[in-house]
Amino acid sequence: MSWNTFGRVLRFTTWGESHGPGLGAVLDGCPPGLPLSAKDIQPFMDARKPGQSKFTTQRKEADAVQILSGVFEDASGQQVTTGTPIHLMIENTDQRSKDYSEIAASYRPGHADYAYDAKYGIRDYRGGGRSSARETAARVAAGAVARRIIPEVSITAYVCELGGDAIERDAINYEEIARNPFFCPDSWAAVRWAEKVEKARKDGSSLGAVVECVATGVPAGWGAPVYAKLDSDLASAMMSINAVKGVEIGDGFEAARLTGEDNADAMSPGEKEGDPPVFASNHAGGTAGGISTGQPVVCRVAFKPTSSILTPVPSITSNGEATEVRTRGRHDPCVGIRGTPVVEAMMALVLADHKMLHRAQIATR
Amino acid sequence: MSWNTFGRVLRFTTWGESHGPGLGAVLDGCPPGLPLSAKDIQPFMDARKPGQSKFTTQRKEADAVQILSGVFEDASGQQVTTGTPIHLMIENTDQRSKDYSEIAASYRPGHADYAYDAKYGIRDYRGGGRSSARETAARVAAGAVARRIIPEVSITAYVCELGGDAIERDAINYEEIARNPFFCPDSWAAVRWAEKVEKARKDGSSLGAVVECVATGVPAGWGAPVYAKLDSDLASAMMSINAVKGVEIGDGFEAARLTGEDNADAMSPGEKEGDPPVFASNHAGGTAGGISTGQPVVCRVAFKPTSSILTPVPSITSNGEATEVRTRGRHDPCVGIRGTPVVEAMMALVLADHKMLHRAQIATR
Amino acid sequence: MSWNTFGRVLRFTTWGESHGPGLGAVLDGCPPGLPLSAKDIQPFMDARKPGQSKFTTQRKEADAVQILSGVFEDASGQQVTTGTPIHLMIENTDQRSKDYSEIAASYRPGHADYAYDAKYGIRDYRGGGRSSARETAARVAAGAVARRIIPEVSITAYVCELGGDAIERDAINYEEIARNPFFCPDSWAAVRWAEKVEKARKDGSSLGAVVECVATGVPAGWGAPVYAKLDSDLASAMMSINAVKGVEIGDGFEAARLTGEDNADAMSPGEKEGDPPVFASNHAGGTAGGISTGQPVVCRVAFKPTSSILTPVPSITSNGEATEVRTRGRHDPCVGIRGTPVVEAMMALVLADHKMLHRAQIATR
Amino acid sequence: MSWNTFGRVLRFTTWGESHGPGLGAVLDGCPPGLPLSAKDIQPFMDARKPGQSKFTTQRKEADAVQILSGVFEDASGQQVTTGTPIHLMIENTDQRSKDYSEIAASYRPGHADYAYDAKYGIRDYRGGGRSSARETAARVAAGAVARRIIPEVSITAYVCELGGDAIERDAINYEEIARNPFFCPDSWAAVRWAEKVEKARKDGSSLGAVVECVATGVPAGWGAPVYAKLDSDLASAMMSINAVKGVEIGDGFEAARLTGEDNADAMSPGEKEGDPPVFASNHAGGTAGGISTGQPVVCRVAFKPTSSILTPVPSITSNGEATEVRTRGRHDPCVGIRGTPVVEAMMALVLADHKMLHRAQIATR
Repeated sequence: MSWNTFGRVLRFTTWGESHGPGLGAVLDGCPPGLPLSAKDIQPFMDARKPGQSKFTTQRKEADAVQILSGVFEDASGQQVTTGTPIHLMIENTDQRSKDYSEIAASYRPGHADYAYDAKYGIRDYRGGGRSSARETAARVAAGAVARRIIPEVSITAYVCELGGDAIERDAINYEEIARNPFFCPDSWAAVRWAEKVEKARKDGSSLGAVVECVATGVPAGWGAPVYAKLDSDLASAMMSINAVKGVEIGDGFEAARLTGEDNADAMSPGEKEGDPPVFASNHAGGTAGGISTGQPVVCRVAFKPTSSILTPVPSITSNGEATEVRTRGRHDPCVGIRGTPVVEAMMALVLADHKMLHRAQIATR
Repeated sequence: MSWNTFGRVLRFTTWGESHGPGLGAVLDGCPPGLPLSAKDIQPFMDARKPGQSKFTTQRKEADAVQILSGVFEDASGQQVTTGTPIHLMIENTDQRSKDYSEIAASYRPGHADYAYDAKYGIRDYRGGGRSSARETAARVAAGAVARRIIPEVSITAYVCELGGDAIERDAINYEEIARNPFFCPDSWAAVRWAEKVEKARKDGSSLGAVVECVATGVPAGWGAPVYAKLDSDLASAMMSINAVKGVEIGDGFEAARLTGEDNADAMSPGEKEGDPPVFASNHAGGTAGGISTGQPVVCRVAFKPTSSILTPVPSITSNGEATEVRTRGRHDPCVGIRGTPVVEAMMALVLADHKMLHRAQIATR
Repeated sequence: MSWNTFGRVLRFTTWGESHGPGLGAVLDGCPPGLPLSAKDIQPFMDARKPGQSKFTTQRKEADAVQILSGVFEDASGQQVTTGTPIHLMIENTDQRSKDYSEIAASYRPGHADYAYDAKYGIRDYRGGGRSSARETAARVAAGAVARRIIPEVSITAYVCELGGDAIERDAINYEEIARNPFFCPDSWAAVRWAEKVEKARKDGSSLGAVVECVATGVPAGWGAPVYAKLDSDLASAMMSINAVKGVEIGDGFEAARLTGEDNADAMSPGEKEGDPPVFASNHAGGTAGGISTGQPVVCRVAFKPTSSILTPVPSITSNGEATEVRTRGRHDPCVGIRGTPVVEAMMALVLADHKMLHRAQIATR
Repeated sequence: MSWNTFGRVLRFTTWGESHGPGLGAVLDGCPPGLPLSAKDIQPFMDARKPGQSKFTTQRKEADAVQILSGVFEDASGQQVTTGTPIHLMIENTDQRSKDYSEIAASYRPGHADYAYDAKYGIRDYRGGGRSSARETAARVAAGAVARRIIPEVSITAYVCELGGDAIERDAINYEEIARNPFFCPDSWAAVRWAEKVEKARKDGSSLGAVVECVATGVPAGWGAPVYAKLDSDLASAMMSINAVKGVEIGDGFEAARLTGEDNADAMSPGEKEGDPPVFASNHAGGTAGGISTGQPVVCRVAFKPTSSILTPVPSITSNGEATEVRTRGRHDPCVGIRGTPVVEAMMALVLADHKMLHRAQIATR
């Protein structure tokens, strides 16, 4: 089954292939009256877009977003959302015409080539077609709109580990994130990673990464027992991103190694009456029973190394014969890097959806 | 928002609180003609049910399932599914009448108490109410039915790490799993864990665990790009289980530390024509692009240590005053253990749903 | 496909067969803090329940509702909703043990017997199984809870035509509705109908009816373009009721016979500033573009005559042989009568869902 | 809430406003391997498109469909569906630049203007924005693809009543439908209607219509008890079309005036063994218990007269002051006419969805 819609009341549907005319997202359910123009979205697109450093793919895409519906001038002449579906379209401009016969005839290991053929009996093999990470451009566009719905929330994602080399927790400085091409909050780690990624690129190899995402300002009470827990929806959202193989909330797998005492987030009263409680720690990552607690919502996402590598790997042709595949072309040596803005976008979309779900049920908030 | 339904075409809805009259699941969309009686479901219930060893909670529940709808005698007199909703009900029998005033008045750290109050302004505090892991009994019942839909698939889950102590991969023997009270496939590890859990129980502490689940027999082609990837739906399913904080598919976070070459699952032709390809490894955990590849589907699930501990933890009352909470009563020293059959159930439910989704779109399979 | 859930954010799932142990509804998404006990629901059940006059089926069912989850005592000791799923269960008590061999072996014309067999290859033939109008008891229970969510709305349904004999519009008096066994707001029509229904019953025949439902107090703004229009959701809700073959909003089919001028609902300003506009007529039935206008929401629902009749009708056996079927047993000579409380329930469920959807998107209302 | 997606496993999402840059539909879940190019869709667009006779609006739109994703060349070089989302886009080309100040400032009676403002606080008033019947172009495009999924089914819709003037049942000739500008299957009625519509146009008035739709070739077994009955989904689909106020299945409201005997569709055995049964009549319109019976699926849809009329109607301004509105501009004197291809499209979409839902649950059919 094809299923290209995400969300419960704030829903978006994406379409498009890597080498088709373009791609897009239809965002439905957005509240009316939010100021929105293409230039509000573009900075988020630019953070994800390819070809910005030698550490990412050299494909050049402007990734210019067009808003084709769902906005209109309000009384003051400002473009605002109208509450109807917002179509965000991005044209593909750098689909090189090239010879696809090799990729058409054989399955790249680690890619979706074989699985798509096994399922559908046909696939758009040009650049991975629908399974290309290019689809995530549409998510970033939708995520930029979602942020408008949750102005009280601040979302920051960064790479916290690259090729097995982790940042120092004490060295985290959010201001560093934009200063290096790795979304790395630790300036020393960024220096080491530059070397690592460059070496992988030269070797025709690739590297994995872990992205951490922190959302502050989420009030207590968002989320939904039992099958739309905030954690479950985040897990689904993150695991749907290309190349992702693991998701943690709060301490994640590390929590499985703690005792109950060490994992407990002790609470104490807020400073003055009516203040939210103060938590002594945040092992839980901001949720309990699937509902936000008022602490920062924290998740971590594991990206596998890019499957497209120059090193030859044994494989089969679509006729079932043995072959060897090297993936030439323009690829990210570490997809996790450009995955960072996508993780932020998915966090924004999940939180905005849950804010709206919450007020559907609980009138007074 | 409350959201107690899971699934896309095979959908189940659970209801019930820990200390109410009972709980249940309405399973909708089940194919007709599948043999089904309560005694088919009971063994799965028994695997999860409490009070079976000193290593789990001492609450005694028969967890006897009643099938209240959706089955009927076929021509041969056998009870089979009819295609209409199957209501599976389990009565609560061991809700001790006790004094709940303490738990009513203060928030247990790590529990959903505070979050529920922050959201709803009211909570059924008896035994955790809706947020109790007792809800998972309904999942296990539904999962037992789901297995009928996928007879080609074999699902096995086991605890692969407890309190930070992992099994030896070489020592895995599925036959061991039922021979110890820990769902442990490594007989030596089971011995060590007995000691660990006993100590934690005596100390009024608790432990976390990691559960691994392997599904063999899943054909290539199940799953759904982009927002209903097999991986995404598994992530959502597993993360919705009480106390779960992390989910991995295949190598998960470890994949983020591999190079592209080391992570590649090389393929070679099957033995004879028409055979599926042979994979040299299964780093991917049986999925690519969200679609099954024919390899075993593998996921790992991290359970935090039980939040209910005898060790006192600072907290607040529902009036916002400082207090200290020790959770007396009957609790699992390690919830991950009894989570194992729940993980299996969720795997079965996701796979059955995707089998049905697949044939909705692809007529010939 | 079996699909037993209705609603978008306020969702209910029903289960149960006519002659099984019972039936029920799981209502999910209900706001917390609403006073709710079984005795609040019972009056609505009683309005629908069988065996209350000689003009309806003689099956005797107490239709006593049990609330098995989702309510709890609040601080003042009152039972209120908690925001978690509310399971409403009704036991079947008058399923006569009788010989079902005849009904098992042949298809009753106008019933779902043949269609169920064609679809599922099996059916619970006792009293129609899942296709029995007994399922509507669960809707009425859920609808009673939905009314709590929309206290600003007043819903009244009544039979406006029975066996082709319509009420006088000028004679409508809501107080009459409860004074006769036909939910008839026109006392003279009720007298005529008594004769008609009695004759049909004696003749082994049956009659159809049209039920009209009016909801006042719905504010302007509920509803959802384009595929969840208030009208569309009402149409779906009403058409899902057993024996319903037509639905109209406002003037319905009559509107197709008016000119644009005659169909226009002219507007004028409200009495004082801030007042809603005054409409000169309500041809539209309270909606425009799928959104409520503040006028009464009006729909009309056509019930076909009961298919179970004593008059023999040519049919086939399940083996495909010719036969003739007379349906003995206890049946309503006019199902539309007891359909009236069901129409009210569905109206309440749709409106409550849309109230919640509206506030999900539009925070300030 | 905005809700612009329709369908269960075959789902489409539409976007776009009347006077924006364009509009479109993303069709998701379509089976792979179906031949599809824009020229397959265009004939259906042409049937609906405006400006083709003096009896419809004079707006000129090519309504040329572009397929932006979800198709690819198969091995034989033919364009086929790939199973991924199909984006169908239609540019708006004849949005006249004109002065919208009048329409911006006052509410057209019968239009969604007031309701949109009451809900969203803002509306795109140019040509009705999102509430314009132009949205139905996207449905027709999606419906054309849906037909590919159900080649066994033949769908024909026609106007059976216009301005209260009905066709003669005996005079129905499907070949006439394309021979007149009214989709009228009765050549004499077409002559009368030409006069009627011309007069309405000259008078600045408008007329309503009833459209009947017949789908033959639907096998027994499609549909879904209880809340996704074939009838319910058709009712929802049809009622979501602009200007629709009523839906009937089979005899509809007329069934409410029949006795049980007269309404019974007697069955007899098919000619030879294994043949489906023969029905003596089709009062039920091809469904029983929400499931298809193998008879033609018949529904009837009531369109109100176009709300845009030259005759002045009292109304209010958006500031709440009294005014009078005449709707100048290009309008259909009878929207029901061009609604005919839209009714066909919605029938195709519902049937294709149910075919796929059916095989999800029932593997062998």
